[in-house]
Amino acid sequence: MHTIMPDTTSTSATRTANLLDAVRRDTPLVHNITNFVVMNNSANALLAIGASPAMVHALDEVEDFVALAQALVINIGTLSPDWVAAMKLAADRAGALGIPWVLDPVGAGATPYRSRAAMALAARAPAVIRGNASEIRTLAREEDAQSRGPDSLHSSDTAVAAARRLARDTGAVVAVTGEVDYVTDGDRLMAVRNGHPLMARVTGLGCTASALVAAFLAVADDRVEAAVAALTVLGVAGELAAARAAGPGSLQVTLLDALYRCDRATLEAHVRA
Amino acid sequence: MHTIMPDTTSTSATRTANLLDAVRRDTPLVHNITNFVVMNNSANALLAIGASPAMVHALDEVEDFVALAQALVINIGTLSPDWVAAMKLAADRAGALGIPWVLDPVGAGATPYRSRAAMALAARAPAVIRGNASEIRTLAREEDAQSRGPDSLHSSDTAVAAARRLARDTGAVVAVTGEVDYVTDGDRLMAVRNGHPLMARVTGLGCTASALVAAFLAVADDRVEAAVAALTVLGVAGELAAARAAGPGSLQVTLLDALYRCDRATLEAHVRA
Amino acid sequence: MHTIMPDTTSTSATRTANLLDAVRRDTPLVHNITNFVVMNNSANALLAIGASPAMVHALDEVEDFVALAQALVINIGTLSPDWVAAMKLAADRAGALGIPWVLDPVGAGATPYRSRAAMALAARAPAVIRGNASEIRTLAREEDAQSRGPDSLHSSDTAVAAARRLARDTGAVVAVTGEVDYVTDGDRLMAVRNGHPLMARVTGLGCTASALVAAFLAVADDRVEAAVAALTVLGVAGELAAARAAGPGSLQVTLLDALYRCDRATLEAHVRA
Repeated sequence: MHTIMPDTTSTSATRTANLLDAVRRDTPLVHNITNFVVMNNSANALLAIGASPAMVHALDEVEDFVALAQALVINIGTLSPDWVAAMKLAADRAGALGIPWVLDPVGAGATPYRSRAAMALAARAPAVIRGNASEIRTLAREEDAQSRGPDSLHSSDTAVAAARRLARDTGAVVAVTGEVDYVTDGDRLMAVRNGHPLMARVTGLGCTASALVAAFLAVADDRVEAAVAALTVLGVAGELAAARAAGPGSLQVTLLDALYRCDRATLEAHVRA
Repeated sequence: MHTIMPDTTSTSATRTANLLDAVRRDTPLVHNITNFVVMNNSANALLAIGASPAMVHALDEVEDFVALAQALVINIGTLSPDWVAAMKLAADRAGALGIPWVLDPVGAGATPYRSRAAMALAARAPAVIRGNASEIRTLAREEDAQSRGPDSLHSSDTAVAAARRLARDTGAVVAVTGEVDYVTDGDRLMAVRNGHPLMARVTGLGCTASALVAAFLAVADDRVEAAVAALTVLGVAGELAAARAAGPGSLQVTLLDALYRCDRATLEAHVRA
Repeated sequence: MHTIMPDTTSTSATRTANLLDAVRRDTPLVHNITNFVVMNNSANALLAIGASPAMVHALDEVEDFVALAQALVINIGTLSPDWVAAMKLAADRAGALGIPWVLDPVGAGATPYRSRAAMALAARAPAVIRGNASEIRTLAREEDAQSRGPDSLHSSDTAVAAARRLARDTGAVVAVTGEVDYVTDGDRLMAVRNGHPLMARVTGLGCTASALVAAFLAVADDRVEAAVAALTVLGVAGELAAARAAGPGSLQVTLLDALYRCDRATLEAHVRA
């Protein structure tokens, strides 16, 4: 069993609602260097919660663009050499400017190329690393981590120790998502219990989670709270959407509606701490 | 106040319906060199109004492909050097062949790279330039234009003078979209008042507008009328979709249905001139 | 008239249901090197039927990744030189490892570049080639084949002879999709009569067909049966979705729900042999 920070449903809902209000008030510009599969959905999820998304990846402009942004997402889902180079430039520039950024190490462990890219980025001081259990265990260099693509081969609770170690090694807050989501800075450990199994049948909702974490980082002082709030909003919206969806197609659509409509009352009624 | 060309609802609806019928009769092949975020939606919007879309960007084939097309869209949303080179080749070939093309200068002004690409393309005789206020003011070299990504920082009516100047300088018809859409050839100025605020919460509907303008250019003699008709169809469909949508997710879907079902009776009932 | 293999509705529904069960039991990893327009939908369609999709295209990792997969899709919808090189590497590696792969020659015939790429891939022993009539006739080197993009200019029954010849020349099973789908190994010829005309108004459902064929190849002994089963599932789901859809936007969404919910009873009620 993991020692999870005590929290109550009501304080968690309140903190999440406060941060969501801040996103809607500040409409942070979130710079995404992300994969082709999810670009449309990530942009729409960010718009739905009130942020302003932009997808920009050229070596010739990522440094200029990240300077305009309040947060950055680097997601390695569909890699190629120019993109990896742009990701490193953008991460370094974000670091120099104090702009928080989220690493989503999609498929780390599946190929050497992918693992090398993920590790090179993890070493560049991301504010948050958000991945599934296979990806986080790979980044934490567990010998028995297995990965074959974007779908995890492990459940999230098998990666809590790895997440803690990775957080301590990199200085990042680490979020492992799955049936239960865990967020840790290496010391504190928080759990997010909202969500629905049908969400795993929609491509890229992990990528959506990473994008939302970036938006919340733009308005939060505490990185653990930002990640918990983002995962809570997504989990609650996913539950509400799944209750109305006839399958994964309508879930993908209804989830965006639920993110858009999510407010303090919704969170107070549905957050499970 | 701008002097807007007098028009009546009924003539506007009739002209728009005539052009929409022509698109459905001719199924023009619309060649898109567009950004990764919107490719699926732009293709689906073109199919919904009866056009035939193709997304083709390789340097090795854009010149051959544009020769098959009845119209071309060049959208700089997600740039990189090979794509910029292909955009220039395609624009030049379209010009040589007399194929009308639409420039969508997404995010012009946000970075020097993006502004240079937009200006180099604007100098290649696009038939129509369609952008938001920030983008059009940047292209018209207004000192105080501000841009930080795809979302405009200015309302459309602040860009009417810039649109007129840009139209005169480039020979393009210029469309500035926003709460009210304005279309000008530098002399005439038309306004399109259909649309719904929720459309701004769906990524890439400006890009959809540009794609639809290209389809209408393929069947119209008058470029101002083509742009007005395309923006009218999108605005009417957007209103009808918003009335049925529970949020931006379902709006994106319902909008395609509404484009598909839009006909003369729909336009006569809903166009606001 | 083509001599089509005799089949009965009930044996076809049973074979299809057996293979669909096998996909859900084995969750095959399907490696996709596909176009930007359809990546999200192809991934979601594969998830909906129970497979595990991954989109991976870098030269530096395609050979490593395909070795993890149970099937591969190569779709040339949005080409560029690095992608073509990666497609050839992946095809060769799949061949060396005995991993079945599907070629989707999108737009073959539209440009010389596209035709050359399609032919170079067709010569690398794909298990199945799935295209529309224009594409298949181009690959079979028919003089009068016409192509101008992803939409076919010919009906599927005009390509049956070409499909047979292409199957004999390449050793691939060839599927021509359209109002009726035909599947042949050069000798046997099967027809799939499910589907709905509105499906042609949604971009990339041919690409979805190719992706589903790959998933079924991963669990089937007979390539003709795998292709027939995949096209049957898609056709049945498309019919059910069209019956509930208000247009092509909702069809795209509802189709994913219908794929997810498709089971033996659905197939027994709806397959037309």
